[in-house]
Amino acid sequence: MTSVRELLRVGPAVNLKDIDPGSTPGLPGRKVTGRDQKVWAREQLALIGGELAVHQEMLYASAKGSGGNRRVLLVLQAMDCGGKDGTIKKVAGAMNPLGLHLVGFGPPSEEELKHDFLWRIRRALPSAGLMGVFNRSHYEDVLIARVDSLVPADVWRERYGQINAFERELTGDGFTLVKVMLHISYDEQRERLLERLTDPTKHWKYNPADVDARARWTDYQAAYTDALGRCSTDHAPWFVVPADRKWYRDWAVANIVLETFKEMRLSYPEPDFDLDAERQRLEADRAPAMAS
Amino acid sequence: MTSVRELLRVGPAVNLKDIDPGSTPGLPGRKVTGRDQKVWAREQLALIGGELAVHQEMLYASAKGSGGNRRVLLVLQAMDCGGKDGTIKKVAGAMNPLGLHLVGFGPPSEEELKHDFLWRIRRALPSAGLMGVFNRSHYEDVLIARVDSLVPADVWRERYGQINAFERELTGDGFTLVKVMLHISYDEQRERLLERLTDPTKHWKYNPADVDARARWTDYQAAYTDALGRCSTDHAPWFVVPADRKWYRDWAVANIVLETFKEMRLSYPEPDFDLDAERQRLEADRAPAMAS
Repeated sequence: MTSVRELLRVGPAVNLKDIDPGSTPGLPGRKVTGRDQKVWAREQLALIGGELAVHQEMLYASAKGSGGNRRVLLVLQAMDCGGKDGTIKKVAGAMNPLGLHLVGFGPPSEEELKHDFLWRIRRALPSAGLMGVFNRSHYEDVLIARVDSLVPADVWRERYGQINAFERELTGDGFTLVKVMLHISYDEQRERLLERLTDPTKHWKYNPADVDARARWTDYQAAYTDALGRCSTDHAPWFVVPADRKWYRDWAVANIVLETFKEMRLSYPEPDFDLDAERQRLEADRAPAMAS
Repeated sequence: MTSVRELLRVGPAVNLKDIDPGSTPGLPGRKVTGRDQKVWAREQLALIGGELAVHQEMLYASAKGSGGNRRVLLVLQAMDCGGKDGTIKKVAGAMNPLGLHLVGFGPPSEEELKHDFLWRIRRALPSAGLMGVFNRSHYEDVLIARVDSLVPADVWRERYGQINAFERELTGDGFTLVKVMLHISYDEQRERLLERLTDPTKHWKYNPADVDARARWTDYQAAYTDALGRCSTDHAPWFVVPADRKWYRDWAVANIVLETFKEMRLSYPEPDFDLDAERQRLEADRAPAMAS
């Protein structure tokens, strides 16, 4: 199978307008068609989930004892209703919660605003051995910060370079970065907002401000296009996942993470103790000592 | 079915010696016997997991907007190899990672030792709406702290009352506490340590110090018995889960959490906006505005 990462990776010339949010790159269309594709993708996701859990455990184990510093950071960005939460539920949910480090970034707090925009990001980085997931990230500082003019243009323009330097620093410190933009269409966003109004168990997810933000859709697409193009580097590439179909989105993100894990060539660490000696100690130890 | 919480809850007169780690209270033994029990318990766990995820989402939703302060904190304690990690993987793993707040407590750091023993616990508490899980907890401060004489006896003796007062404060602040001790036998611990030596994918979990700690098994059981008896209160009860059989352990903990959720009578919040007006806005909104 073609690498999903290769198919979805974007470069400096990316333009979101050229990427169809309803497409399904990499899905074996000829073998499984129509409704079958969804069923197939969901089945595959379950299998991939099991593989992800094994790689995640090796990552976790490798940081114990000997002190490896490797860790993975999945950065998720999307327009409202783009499916960040759903992706986390399905892809991160397949892994062991003990090895996950999940952080969501909302509007910066008063204290955070008193610092450089990367301050709160640095404080939230995963420790060695963990699978980090950022639900929104420092990219908001070149997205909403730009579209809503929260900072002057010369400030956000400087940030692309600052982000690239920051991410290079991270990859030098054991990080493997996986940056994913979930790409939905204007129509699909409306459908999902309507669904939140229709289903009483989803009312709480609905925010009237999300509809107001639709007025700035085109500006956001331009801001995303710039962020993707300027910050998709060899050490920290961006992937754009067509996300109008949830089952494709989950399958694609799971594959991107799995391919990343495989490339890391993780393994369980060798024991740093004498296996036979320990076994003998345990075999001899049949009853608890008396209370002291 | 009898409430699993009622069956496993312990009171002031608890003695761990009287609880068989291999028993399976609450399991419908007559209907499903032998190997079938394990299969049945695993099937049930999958069903309960789905229910847990729904209740967890209602808890999460209830803290959005209107500002409810309810949250759940599952405290897990056990001897080494008692199954804390496995329980988290199976029970917390069934829930949405976005609504989980998982904290593991190891030996206190230098900074933590400069503070009261509850300092690091307070800093790690889950926010409103979250399902918190503590992998070890403040109870280590009346367990290892006592058995290994890390503090004088008059210090740890004071802590039972301090813990009860602290936990009462939490329940007054929207917390529902679920404290679970996973109870394994001395023999089962040896089997699990041996398995970690035998299976190369488990070598990393093996710590020779765990075998040394077995010499203090009886002291630990006494310390656990005191902690359970003195700190099982109406507002924060302790449950002892027989844990030699992993499938029973997972099933029982999942049931305890589910029964707790049900008693909380959670529901999705009512919308605080005009449903019809929002629907009309969206229906009218068919094409993105031009770029500004």
